[in-house]
Amino acid sequence: MNSSLNPKIGTASPLKIFPLGGLGEIGMNCMLIETETSAVLVDCGLMFSDLDHFGVEFVVPNFKLIFDRREKIKGIILTHGHEDHIGALSFLLKSGIRAPLYASHFTALMIRERLEETGLSDAVPMNILTSGVSVELGDFKVTPVAVNHSIIDAMGLIIDTPIGKIVHTGDFKCAPTAYVGDVMAWELFQKSGDDGVLLLMSDSTNVERDYDDVKEADIADRMVDLLSQARGMTVVTLFSSNVGRLANIIQAGLKTGKKIAITGRSMQQNLRLAMERRAFSMPAEALIPIEDVRHFDRKDVLVLSTGCQGEYRSALNRMAREEHAHVTLTDQDLVIFSSSQIPGNEKEISRLLNDLFRCGSEVVYSALDDVHSSGHATRPELKRVLETVKPKFFLPVHGEFRHLVKHAELALETGVREENILVAENGEVLELTPDRFAIVDKFEDLRVLVQDREGSEIPRALLKDRKKLAETGAVVSLLAREKESGRVLTKPEVI
Amino acid sequence: MNSSLNPKIGTASPLKIFPLGGLGEIGMNCMLIETETSAVLVDCGLMFSDLDHFGVEFVVPNFKLIFDRREKIKGIILTHGHEDHIGALSFLLKSGIRAPLYASHFTALMIRERLEETGLSDAVPMNILTSGVSVELGDFKVTPVAVNHSIIDAMGLIIDTPIGKIVHTGDFKCAPTAYVGDVMAWELFQKSGDDGVLLLMSDSTNVERDYDDVKEADIADRMVDLLSQARGMTVVTLFSSNVGRLANIIQAGLKTGKKIAITGRSMQQNLRLAMERRAFSMPAEALIPIEDVRHFDRKDVLVLSTGCQGEYRSALNRMAREEHAHVTLTDQDLVIFSSSQIPGNEKEISRLLNDLFRCGSEVVYSALDDVHSSGHATRPELKRVLETVKPKFFLPVHGEFRHLVKHAELALETGVREENILVAENGEVLELTPDRFAIVDKFEDLRVLVQDREGSEIPRALLKDRKKLAETGAVVSLLAREKESGRVLTKPEVI
Repeated sequence: MNSSLNPKIGTASPLKIFPLGGLGEIGMNCMLIETETSAVLVDCGLMFSDLDHFGVEFVVPNFKLIFDRREKIKGIILTHGHEDHIGALSFLLKSGIRAPLYASHFTALMIRERLEETGLSDAVPMNILTSGVSVELGDFKVTPVAVNHSIIDAMGLIIDTPIGKIVHTGDFKCAPTAYVGDVMAWELFQKSGDDGVLLLMSDSTNVERDYDDVKEADIADRMVDLLSQARGMTVVTLFSSNVGRLANIIQAGLKTGKKIAITGRSMQQNLRLAMERRAFSMPAEALIPIEDVRHFDRKDVLVLSTGCQGEYRSALNRMAREEHAHVTLTDQDLVIFSSSQIPGNEKEISRLLNDLFRCGSEVVYSALDDVHSSGHATRPELKRVLETVKPKFFLPVHGEFRHLVKHAELALETGVREENILVAENGEVLELTPDRFAIVDKFEDLRVLVQDREGSEIPRALLKDRKKLAETGAVVSLLAREKESGRVLTKPEVI
Repeated sequence: MNSSLNPKIGTASPLKIFPLGGLGEIGMNCMLIETETSAVLVDCGLMFSDLDHFGVEFVVPNFKLIFDRREKIKGIILTHGHEDHIGALSFLLKSGIRAPLYASHFTALMIRERLEETGLSDAVPMNILTSGVSVELGDFKVTPVAVNHSIIDAMGLIIDTPIGKIVHTGDFKCAPTAYVGDVMAWELFQKSGDDGVLLLMSDSTNVERDYDDVKEADIADRMVDLLSQARGMTVVTLFSSNVGRLANIIQAGLKTGKKIAITGRSMQQNLRLAMERRAFSMPAEALIPIEDVRHFDRKDVLVLSTGCQGEYRSALNRMAREEHAHVTLTDQDLVIFSSSQIPGNEKEISRLLNDLFRCGSEVVYSALDDVHSSGHATRPELKRVLETVKPKFFLPVHGEFRHLVKHAELALETGVREENILVAENGEVLELTPDRFAIVDKFEDLRVLVQDREGSEIPRALLKDRKKLAETGAVVSLLAREKESGRVLTKPEVI
């Protein structure tokens, strides 16, 4: 049956898939797909380190494996602009790898900013992807598929290979996302399903959620309610890359006659990029500089702020600690968290919430009110994708190990054969033929710890020393002896 | 109206209340209540530090304030046996403070073990509290009130003082807890409410939960279901102090014909104490040593294990990492988390879950199934307490700042007057008279960081040094000079 998928089948050699990141963890998505003569890289993300107290800010893939294949790489495809998909690109380029970039409009703008910051803007050419418009990359034909996600211009991929079709969902949800509405090009997934798909790779993040999430339209309505009831200033914090939601909240602000100020560098930057992208527009007079907030009646002001994860140096944390240069919160004000808690940030967020309560402000967050919705498909949506794409083989991606297992179970429920489902992790080499999908090898040295965007690597031995120093402190004892006689010259000195 | 509460009112001087811990945080509960001549200490807990990578395992109250009043202290009352209520007792005793202890039977047994471990068993006498039976402690008459909680023998307190009645709920929930059923002596709270209560202090932990939690009886039934369907070994992990739940699960094991093994020191210890307390009994032959698990048919075995918070050295984590001496998990086995995630432990728990999935075992946890219920009252239950006790003044306790604020709002809803509600934090001195409840002063040096149970203190300056060392490492450069001439004797050496 499968030989009908592609005329070359039978003569073509197997595909190899190298997950460098994102399988068995949420973050650092990076995957190389290769034939004998060509390769494409899908995403090049970083992960925020939980070793920041040891001077490690980021974790990025170890690019040795890619470097060894650098001549074969026909393109680097970035599915969307989140850090866990584009954040390691500058590190990749610094390692000497060169290949043209392929990304949607907004993603390309975000990459441009990142590369400018690191002085790498001219290193490689950028090609803009449009949903439904294919590009040829060596042995691969890649067709981007617009999907709904918590950032605009997110793409899934249909990749025609010599042995058959691969569908990669990217990060997605089926329900329409903020502002831009439903952009999802279902018909492309549908068509690929009808044509026959050899392998589906699908986002596993929310496979444990068996319920429908809050609708973005309801969040927008709720924002209008909250803003119109405000007795004082309203501050809304959200992920700064969620410009669709940002646009929705700005719309709600305009509807309720607010003057709108933005605080936090990343949010200002992303708003500027979204305007450049023409993702939305707003009357210039509605936006006021954050310095001017004090000149307006507090209840007419809407502040959009970074800091929804409790980041120490963020604008919102400075407000909460009464250290923000232009905004002082009072007991008349309302702070809305239009965001979720990223696992690992709970304590920082909790600290921030308590500080906001200490300011006397009212605080609304998604545990208490319908002010956030996730950007990832829930179990029923994932099921729909499996049933639409009807793949022969299935690889759950973008999840911790347990998410991958749960997603594999779901695929089994929808009729994918058990022996055709692979739960694989970073560092495993996967081989795909028309008849077989298997782990055939392993590669080592998966990840590199880096200090910051400048990218100085922290070797593991150094980290080990730092941990020891942290736990026990350092004692340096000095004792000078005369070389010839061995006579002690000084009293021992201990620091 | 209030003068009818107590004949001494009018002549008596104000009460002072010193929250040393637990107000504005969850953990380290400790509160001193004093008149001019007497004082009682309510609870003496520790907090697990999030600075463990800097060699700080615990945080305990700074006992200077108590030490200065040590002659006045008539008793130390421990409301129940959780670490955040009894864990700092050994540190208190080591600081030279002596006063008789008052605790319920099981709490007293847990304290006995703790003090034996630190060689302090004979330092102070222990008195056993019984619900409804008052004890006189100087100016105070203390009546313990049995409450439902996630540990057996938990007590609230009714404290008669020269100026009126104080009710302290302790940690509690209204819904019956595991095994022992409904022990809550509502009638005592009811009666105090009818007599007139000057001040209520109530547990704020779950004030944000506006729904009914899972019933313990349903958890017990669900355990029987899960155990009877088991294809392989079943491992259940839970908080080791939750001996009521432990008893329920053992009952479910007996009903389904399992052999039961316990792994993890703290769980074995608590089971032994619960047997000594005669909280429950079980046929001796049902319990097997963990070493013998391998001799039984796997589906006949139930293992009860520590490690529900992902603790690195715990029994369950050793199983998940295939390092447990006696238990190896397979893809036929089932692991049940009959527990919640304590904020701050999410990442460790997530890591553990993933490792268990890697073993191939099925894993059930409270996000997916009804296998856990909290030990703290939800909002509707807290409301019921406020309406029953009908206090004049209200102090929310046992919560982060935002919980205290939300609980204060709830008190307002139930008719407590706004000016009679105090949201106070650790380190504030509260003064209570029949007519006024206010923050009158502050005290400093609230907490001490300690390395471990042995109690070596980590001064803040040392911690600062360690943080610096951790982030940047240490460079020691040595250069020997001759004292007289200043001539350099060696080449500089850098480590």
